[in-house]
Amino acid sequence: MSSVDEFTLIDLLNGGQQTIAFQRAGGVETGIGDDAAVVRASSDSRWILTCDTMTEDIHFKRVTMRDADIGYKAMASAVSDIAAMGGTPRYALVALSMPKSTPVEQVRAMYDGLYECANRYRVVVAGGDTTSCIGGVTLTVTVIGETEPDRALLRSAARLGDVVFITGFTGDSAAGLEWLLGKNKPSEEWDDDPELKQYPGLIQAHCRPEPQIQAGELLRRSGFCHALNDVSDGIASEAWEIAAASNIGIDLIEDRIPVSGELLEYASKQGKDPLDYMLYGGEDYQLIGTAPAEHAVELQMKFKEAGLPLYLIGYVHGEHSGVRLVRSDGGAVSLAKRGYNHFTG
Amino acid sequence: MSSVDEFTLIDLLNGGQQTIAFQRAGGVETGIGDDAAVVRASSDSRWILTCDTMTEDIHFKRVTMRDADIGYKAMASAVSDIAAMGGTPRYALVALSMPKSTPVEQVRAMYDGLYECANRYRVVVAGGDTTSCIGGVTLTVTVIGETEPDRALLRSAARLGDVVFITGFTGDSAAGLEWLLGKNKPSEEWDDDPELKQYPGLIQAHCRPEPQIQAGELLRRSGFCHALNDVSDGIASEAWEIAAASNIGIDLIEDRIPVSGELLEYASKQGKDPLDYMLYGGEDYQLIGTAPAEHAVELQMKFKEAGLPLYLIGYVHGEHSGVRLVRSDGGAVSLAKRGYNHFTG
Repeated sequence: MSSVDEFTLIDLLNGGQQTIAFQRAGGVETGIGDDAAVVRASSDSRWILTCDTMTEDIHFKRVTMRDADIGYKAMASAVSDIAAMGGTPRYALVALSMPKSTPVEQVRAMYDGLYECANRYRVVVAGGDTTSCIGGVTLTVTVIGETEPDRALLRSAARLGDVVFITGFTGDSAAGLEWLLGKNKPSEEWDDDPELKQYPGLIQAHCRPEPQIQAGELLRRSGFCHALNDVSDGIASEAWEIAAASNIGIDLIEDRIPVSGELLEYASKQGKDPLDYMLYGGEDYQLIGTAPAEHAVELQMKFKEAGLPLYLIGYVHGEHSGVRLVRSDGGAVSLAKRGYNHFTG
Repeated sequence: MSSVDEFTLIDLLNGGQQTIAFQRAGGVETGIGDDAAVVRASSDSRWILTCDTMTEDIHFKRVTMRDADIGYKAMASAVSDIAAMGGTPRYALVALSMPKSTPVEQVRAMYDGLYECANRYRVVVAGGDTTSCIGGVTLTVTVIGETEPDRALLRSAARLGDVVFITGFTGDSAAGLEWLLGKNKPSEEWDDDPELKQYPGLIQAHCRPEPQIQAGELLRRSGFCHALNDVSDGIASEAWEIAAASNIGIDLIEDRIPVSGELLEYASKQGKDPLDYMLYGGEDYQLIGTAPAEHAVELQMKFKEAGLPLYLIGYVHGEHSGVRLVRSDGGAVSLAKRGYNHFTG
């Protein structure tokens, strides 16, 4: 990087990635290039603020992600927090720290992935900061989303009589990560390895997770959704967060939790239970939430009309606090709260 | 950190730092603890978005800052970008990445400093992310500020006939940094070293810079201010940004640029010109800008009433592009554009 100065770098990274017209339509009045961005707020809206950091060797390694995936996933994980509130993402700020020796091509690829995700979810990248650092790459994405007053979907809103739903498969990302770590192959060489083509869905789930913005908006607009969370640390952990915040108990029914064909096949080959990945595996970014049982069918119909899946996987009750898994044989086991945690182990 | 899990850490860092009442008064409807924060927007306002990153060994070292200074300055530098737009800071998100071995006391001190600055400028810390990393501490602060429509003060707004002003001393921070680097003493031992008490103002300027929020708001409300920038890379560099963005030339008059007594003394002892620090030294966070000459006196009166300094240090003209320094003998020298740049050298 020593031949690229900061201003050139900012131009390089942002140039042509999003048109002025796109930014204007998104409410940007002053974009990248001044001290800060200036954006328009709809009157009577609420803003949703969140940020998410990915660091090298903790959240990604050269053998688990391509450069463009790093950017994509950093944006996706922050956007997912907006989905988890039922919001619509609007603006992003991107803070990238990297060693001076980072090749420009690598930075370019990270930003390409980041903008690919931003464009898909119509997020305007309104600013950021690029700095050098000693150590690995750190990428922090702040996303600002919008919702109507009193419509944000909180963890604490689950009620007795609710069913628990999920918007798709979980565990795939954790299995994909395990598979890639086992292969231990630099991502530049993935294309040359036919074995790596065995589980494209698991790799995709880990490297290019899709925040469930459309599902979140549908849940918000339906008026039926009570609590909502995105699955970043496995369904057990997320269900626990809802149970604890709402002061209720949750039973998840094993046979109802959807599982992908690839995960079934992969887990079987590893001699493991798919649930090992689904309960505490990280970063699938599906939405898990609760809705009144009497509206469950109507909600499922709305999702069907929109071409989106919605699975009913459990229910809320007051018999115990915490989360249990009801097994196929009818027995129930308590699930531990702890999922993946950056500061343990 | 291995004994502190992420949730406990979040509680530890944020607990009691800002009351619920303070957050509510600031417009927060859902604070730290859910997927994202939800905040209220005033109708018909504009939002100003910015973020700023500080990384260990690049922006700070153990010999140049105390832990609390790191947090204070990370918040201050992001808040300063809001001041540079004439805005009012409202919300912040804090992303901290640190090695697992970081002592809890050190993290606590960083957050104490960060909240000290946030509270001083009435910024609500609405969320964030704490992650571990390989390498040093990286602290990214995103700040969201507010202004009225069409009132943001941009770099590109300087006009012929404007005077150039600055809100205070510059160069002190760069001199403070140089002094601390020369001493090369871990910050825990500063109190024991009488020599370090020689230049308290320079150290304060480097470790605890004050974003000029009050001055920025006064400039915005006056209606007289055209272009505005905060001095993060020295006055030559910032004047250049205004000149280039506005497509005009700027002459700075050496004798008019204010200089602190400590910098005069320090530079003299080093056998240097104070201008060496003022022109390209970084991170003083004073505001430099332009206003129509016919309103200059009125603007100075407003500042005097508010108990704030405002120095007229130059003027805008169309004779050349770029920035010149008019010396005491009447001769003028062109100033180079380049200030401190993270990606050169």
